[in-house]
Amino acid sequence: MEEKKVVLRELLLKHPADIAEVLSHLSDEQAVDLLHRLYLRRAAAETLGEMEPEDSAELLSGLDPKEAIRILSRMDPDDAVDLLEELPASAQTELLSHLDREEATVLAGLLAFPPDTAGGLMSPEVIALPLSMTVQEAIDSLRRRVEEAETIYYAYAVDEQGRLLGVFSLRDMALARPDSPLSSLLKRDVISIPVEADAEEVARLFDKYNYYALPVVNTDGKLLGIITIDDVIDVIREEATEDIYRSQGVPLEERVDTPWYESIKSRMPWLYFNLLTAFLAASVVGAFESTIAKFAVLAFFMPIIAGQGGNAGMQTVTIVTRGIALGEVPRGQGWRVLAKEAILGILNGLAMGVVVGAVGYVWKGTYALGLVVFLAMTLNLVTAAVTGTVIPLGLRAVRLDPALGSSIFLTTFTDTLGFAFLFLLARAFL
Amino acid sequence: MEEKKVVLRELLLKHPADIAEVLSHLSDEQAVDLLHRLYLRRAAAETLGEMEPEDSAELLSGLDPKEAIRILSRMDPDDAVDLLEELPASAQTELLSHLDREEATVLAGLLAFPPDTAGGLMSPEVIALPLSMTVQEAIDSLRRRVEEAETIYYAYAVDEQGRLLGVFSLRDMALARPDSPLSSLLKRDVISIPVEADAEEVARLFDKYNYYALPVVNTDGKLLGIITIDDVIDVIREEATEDIYRSQGVPLEERVDTPWYESIKSRMPWLYFNLLTAFLAASVVGAFESTIAKFAVLAFFMPIIAGQGGNAGMQTVTIVTRGIALGEVPRGQGWRVLAKEAILGILNGLAMGVVVGAVGYVWKGTYALGLVVFLAMTLNLVTAAVTGTVIPLGLRAVRLDPALGSSIFLTTFTDTLGFAFLFLLARAFL
Repeated sequence: MEEKKVVLRELLLKHPADIAEVLSHLSDEQAVDLLHRLYLRRAAAETLGEMEPEDSAELLSGLDPKEAIRILSRMDPDDAVDLLEELPASAQTELLSHLDREEATVLAGLLAFPPDTAGGLMSPEVIALPLSMTVQEAIDSLRRRVEEAETIYYAYAVDEQGRLLGVFSLRDMALARPDSPLSSLLKRDVISIPVEADAEEVARLFDKYNYYALPVVNTDGKLLGIITIDDVIDVIREEATEDIYRSQGVPLEERVDTPWYESIKSRMPWLYFNLLTAFLAASVVGAFESTIAKFAVLAFFMPIIAGQGGNAGMQTVTIVTRGIALGEVPRGQGWRVLAKEAILGILNGLAMGVVVGAVGYVWKGTYALGLVVFLAMTLNLVTAAVTGTVIPLGLRAVRLDPALGSSIFLTTFTDTLGFAFLFLLARAFL
Repeated sequence: MEEKKVVLRELLLKHPADIAEVLSHLSDEQAVDLLHRLYLRRAAAETLGEMEPEDSAELLSGLDPKEAIRILSRMDPDDAVDLLEELPASAQTELLSHLDREEATVLAGLLAFPPDTAGGLMSPEVIALPLSMTVQEAIDSLRRRVEEAETIYYAYAVDEQGRLLGVFSLRDMALARPDSPLSSLLKRDVISIPVEADAEEVARLFDKYNYYALPVVNTDGKLLGIITIDDVIDVIREEATEDIYRSQGVPLEERVDTPWYESIKSRMPWLYFNLLTAFLAASVVGAFESTIAKFAVLAFFMPIIAGQGGNAGMQTVTIVTRGIALGEVPRGQGWRVLAKEAILGILNGLAMGVVVGAVGYVWKGTYALGLVVFLAMTLNLVTAAVTGTVIPLGLRAVRLDPALGSSIFLTTFTDTLGFAFLFLLARAFL
């Protein structure tokens, strides 16, 4: 008992992010127990705000409901909403019903925005200041609101309808004469984020303009909230992970330490789907069984031609998908990318085709085999380049994520057509 | 001429990041011309700082050397160094020799740090304040240095040897009474970044602690510089792109708009390397040509068994590689990951094996074929799980990037062994 107290005292000296890390390494029971102790020392809300929402939601559910509600009301609203989103709807409603009416309204409002949009990322705790203040009055006002605000580095001016007029920075206020009018510090050409902008777009704006915080507005220009750059870092890392995972059919929530019985539930369906497409490609092989029985050497070239199509096509898919994610392929400009990739497909196809063609000729001493594998390889690499460009652009055109399974569509094409080219050409020339 | 002036005037009202975007859409000649005009209006340095270093370096090289040197001396040192790193060593030396001695020393010092470390990311323009000041004196001091400093949101206290003692935030200064002692605002438990930390580690610290800026120190604890979060965003996006690219054999500097004659130079060698490994896997097929001639049906199962191994293995590679990048696999804990993936490999192998085994039995009506493909599939998926874990962990152990070509090593294994399992089992049982 005595020992526990010493540990707790030391822990409380640490940064909430470090306390959160300690929590994540404890068993569920120990973690809930520690969280309860943190609650008694008023350190639970900040710590939960530093955890992954799925973990903090699980911990909060383990607490006494009264404690859970008090902790929730002390959390930053954007963190609280991230946590609530991980809970079942019934638990959300239950918790919200026990909060202050004002707090509940704020959180319910935020819950209405999709989590991967500016609305889902923002905090409503943004400071608006009247233009009539002096700088000293503004600073005094910030001092009174420092606890509740998401940040006090930026404050905003709005008109009577709440529409954004401009931005003040704490930097300018700190450096200005205290008795000068606040309005002299207003910057009117302010960059703002539409509330419906998706997370990728938010990340792009922060990446481009290098501000620490940006205001969020609705279509009327009304100031709704603020997004700070530290929340965007999470988004960028998650989006990158998601893009990589999606392209390989890995469930988004899986991490290295996900237990195997969880992993298998999500990985196996993808493998079954792959198996289906593999049978599709193999059915081409099945249809040419008699050709293979006659020319068993074709089985040697099958994996080479299909595989090279997959490799070259994935280079294209990777470049195009990432280009879309980084905003480098404006809509309507896809044909430029297609032209480039088609040229590369022809040249790579000829280069690889010459090698396999030479191997075929030298190995079996027949021109015909050399010609067959040369043509099959060239055609398959052109196919790979075209489909590798068209698939991600097509997925974007129908408003799906370009990273979503581009690789499986591509390899189904390059396998199926690679086999078909090889066997059809063999039937014609051998 | 008149029109150009109007356009320039409008352009100058925009954010430097927007001007940089305009520049990137012009031809080289037009861009250099515009940059010259921006230089005359003292807007060139900021604009170049917002561009990709390879682009800004090219533009700067196009300018009159005297202008280039003046612009360089007006740039933030961290941006200037990024630009210099893109130039040949002779051009670097030439430019540095024409700068102020003090400026040249700072830049040469920064150039000595590898670009993907904290030293390469930091700005040396960090503010240290004496503890003996009052808050008002501190703010006055910040005001005088606002132009040169990387940020004034944070200032630091150091001892006589320059070792970091603690941090002051502008926020605390702005909210404190002007005549209170600055020392009362000092936070001693400051998070700092070792100068040799790699960029991934820097990103991890910012992601964890959510500060806008962190100080950089050497092994003695001496304050060397500061890294701001906006520079880290670039790093995170680049690292994610690099991980994705490396795994697919795409050159790191390629973008969708890279001209095809540049792309082919870097993509073709990778494809040739792939071709080599494809021949390796296919040589197994070649060795069993007589078996295939007798049992052509095996050619149908070849791509299915090899392909499923590749798919399942890439799920493992993706999870493990990303886990390493996000710092979730401590050294020495790799066996936990291996145990999990091995269990998944066995279960997925059995699940896929049953399906292909049933197809083999039903199609040809022989138990033996069903058994052969069932066993080959199961064995290949276990192999895929083990190699998919061991390859990235092994690359890390020998201090190579785990993302570097994991996929090609993996598919070489799963193809070669997949074919070998299939044909060896066929020879034994058919």
